[in-house]
Formats: sequence, structure tokens, C-alpha cells
Amino acid sequence: MKLDESALAATTNDLTREVDARGVADLIEFRMDQADDPLEQLAAYDGELPIIATNRARWFGGKASDTGRLDDLFSASRYDAVEFVDIELETVRAKEWLAHEFRENDVQLIISHHDFEETPDRDVLDAIIEQCAEFGDVAKVAVFPQNQGDTLTLLEAVNDATNRGIDVAGISMGEIGSHTRVIGHLYGSKLGYAPLLADDNDYAPGQIPLEKLASLIELTKNERVDGQVIDTIRSEVSVPKELTLSD
Amino acid sequence: MKLDESALAATTNDLTREVDARGVADLIEFRMDQADDPLEQLAAYDGELPIIATNRARWFGGKASDTGRLDDLFSASRYDAVEFVDIELETVRAKEWLAHEFRENDVQLIISHHDFEETPDRDVLDAIIEQCAEFGDVAKVAVFPQNQGDTLTLLEAVNDATNRGIDVAGISMGEIGSHTRVIGHLYGSKLGYAPLLADDNDYAPGQIPLEKLASLIELTKNERVDGQVIDTIRSEVSVPKELTLSD
Repeated sequence: MKLDESALAATTNDLTREVDARGVADLIEFRMDQADDPLEQLAAYDGELPIIATNRARWFGGKASDTGRLDDLFSASRYDAVEFVDIELETVRAKEWLAHEFRENDVQLIISHHDFEETPDRDVLDAIIEQCAEFGDVAKVAVFPQNQGDTLTLLEAVNDATNRGIDVAGISMGEIGSHTRVIGHLYGSKLGYAPLLADDNDYAPGQIPLEKLASLIELTKNERVDGQVIDTIRSEVSVPKELTLSD
Repeated sequence: MKLDESALAATTNDLTREVDARGVADLIEFRMDQADDPLEQLAAYDGELPIIATNRARWFGGKASDTGRLDDLFSASRYDAVEFVDIELETVRAKEWLAHEFRENDVQLIISHHDFEETPDRDVLDAIIEQCAEFGDVAKVAVFPQNQGDTLTLLEAVNDATNRGIDVAGISMGEIGSHTRVIGHLYGSKLGYAPLLADDNDYAPGQIPLEKLASLIELTKNERVDGQVIDTIRSEVSVPKELTLSD
């Protein structure tokens, strides 16, 4: 699967619920670290949607213990339905050979960075995105805003990375950043995430339920094209440099 | 009326339709320049919503001829229902005494600046907002984005002006900027505008119909409060400065 347009991933720990995501989400993010028998679930999977396999350690907001975490993720990447694997930037930086190993199983790599405390300065955020893109196919950054300005810093970093040709997914977390999940695609964010409806788990702060997020995103896509109106107004407006009002 | 929270104005050229805006909009923006017999309409007005009187000249995207434009606006400001008057920055800059005259009729002044071609650089936009705020109670800027980055420039200017204590209304026009009409309030924008449903006029590029805009804004307000989730995740996450992964 190629992320030409922005795609929406439904996050779940139960692959039998994939049917609920069809027609709404483009992908399933399978949170192996919060699932019962994740490898058995993958073996039994006969759904339609391609899978992002994620096995998040406690370091990064997940529940997987370190022992066997990457082995399980590697086993997951062997399944045909698994088209993406999410690996934390910090993990792949410490074990650079991982990227090559996973690629041999014909999966694309989402290299992710999370900061649940704050939003890094713009130059640091840019450097993180560049590093993620060096190792992977999609650079994912999820950072926590301490104020509204931080949400704009995240959107600017996403917008500029997109303009530099990077496939980036950017999220400003928490309540303050919640709307970035809706409008991120307008700035080039390639992947959105939402919990599958009726799934009680909280995977990340500020998430919006799948059906609601999908319809909000759709609404931002469906604005009427008003090129004609703009042209009309432009032709009527011509403010002179030296404005002299005669009224 | 005090603009404590963000308010939504329904734009119309027909005050008899005010009833359609009740319960959805907080104000009526009456576009006198596009109305038949505007002063007669104001004399007959017995609606509930307070009115913003706007009489836009052709210079600024309206239809009023220069002759008598400001006299009519001044007459409008005498009606009790008219609580705000919109005057272009360029107009009040050329006739500074206007602000004082209008204030004597007990109205608040929205000083507006429009640019239908482009979005000024950040420092210029800041200076425009400061000037608007010097003359009026609300500084309104509606500027046209040439790319996504321009919409972020507008939102940043609104956010920073809000942090400096200015009552500002900011809009990035056109299709690219359309979503700023929905999320602007999150950055402090005090006034949104939408055409009254079933009103065929196009007042500004990128506008979203009233009912739709009102429900979209409401959705961005109703995100679930997830402070508890955030605290939980924070307590579980503690990435050490020197990261050593044991898996």
C-alpha cells in the first residue's frame, strides 16, 4: 500500500474487530503490546485492511516488556497482511541493522518519535523528522503541546517536511492538540490514527474515536471549490498603494 | 455584548431572515452594501440577535459606492440593535476622527483589514493587527493564503495577538484557508463569520455555511477531557536521557 493521500489507521488490540473499521479506516494499527496472543491473532487474520504492526515498549507509552518485544514484531512482519511496522526512532538508532532486517520481510517502516511531556523546538523537531525519514519510509512524530503555539510548531514542521518531500505523520497530542488529528492532512500528514469504536483502550492522549474523526476529516475535504468566487472578488478589488478615499 | 468567548456572526443582506440564525449564531452581520433599503430594514428590525453593521466599499470586496457610504453606516450605528460597526483600517486611518464619532453612538468598533491577493509577512501582519487594535475594540484580519504555510502564519499571528491581550478575529480565506474558520477560535479568534443558510450571496471566499460551521466549531469544543489519560501515560513513560535498550 502506498500512502499517496493521507490514510486513516484504526487502532485496536483485537483483530477480529477489523470488520468494524472497513469503509471508514484505510488501515488497522494492531497494538500487539496491548493484545492477547498477538501472533496467534495475526495467524488467524483474514480481514481486508492492511495492518500496521506496533509493539510499543513501556519507554514509549506502550505495555510490552523489553524481553522478546522486537522478536515478536519481527515475527509479525512476516505475515502478508502486515504492510507496515512501527519502530521507535530511539530503538532503530540503537540497532541500525533492524531496519535492513525488517525490510527483507517486505514491509514499510514507520519510524516514530513520541514526546509525552512537551513539543521540541522547531529545529529539534525538524532534526527528529529528518532522522526518522533516514531510517524509514514514514516519519511519525507525536508530541505533547503545552500551549496553542506548540500545535502550530508541529503543523509547521509537518508542512515543511512535506514540502521537502518527506512522508511524515505528525500529531500534537492531548486536548489542546486534538484538532491537529483532523486538519493534519491539510498540511501533508500522511497517517492519522483513531481508536476503533467500542474499543475501551486509550492508546494516546487526545485521540478522537474512529467514526467521528473520519467524518470530521471528510468534512474538511468537502469544502466547496470557490475558485470562481475568488476570481470575481479579485477582479473587483484593487486597493491602490496610495489609498485616497473619496467618501 | 462582550466577546468573552468566540462568537459566530451570520452574514446576511436581509434582516427578516434573522430568525433563521437564532440558536446557531450569536450575531448578525448585516451587509448593508448588498442589501435593498438597508436603513429601512434596520428601522423595521425587531430580531433578538445584536447586529454588526458593515457597509463595504468596492475597494474592499463590497458593493457600496463611495458616495454616502460612511453616512449610511453612521446612521446605522444609531440603532440600538447595532452593537458593532465594521470599519476598514484603511478608512479609519485616513479619517481618524471617525472612530470617535461612531463611539458616541455607543457601538464597538471592528477595525478590519482585507487582502484578497496574499498573506502579508508575519511582521507586517502583526503591525496591521496592532494598528487595528489601536483604533478599535476588535482587530479583524482576513487574508488570502497562497499555500498551506500562509494559513499557519495567520493562525500564529492570531495566537500571538491573543497572548498580547488583543481581541482579534483572523481568517485565512479561500479553499486552502477554509479550515481556519473552524479552528480559529482555538487560537483565540474572537469572531467567526458564515453566510446565513439559504442566502445565495457570496460574501467572502472560503466561507462555510452557517449550520455546518456552527456544528464543526461545536465538535472541536467537545473533545473529551483526557487529563486523566495523559497523567496515566506520563507516569508510565520515563525515557532516560541516555537511552539504553535492553531488548
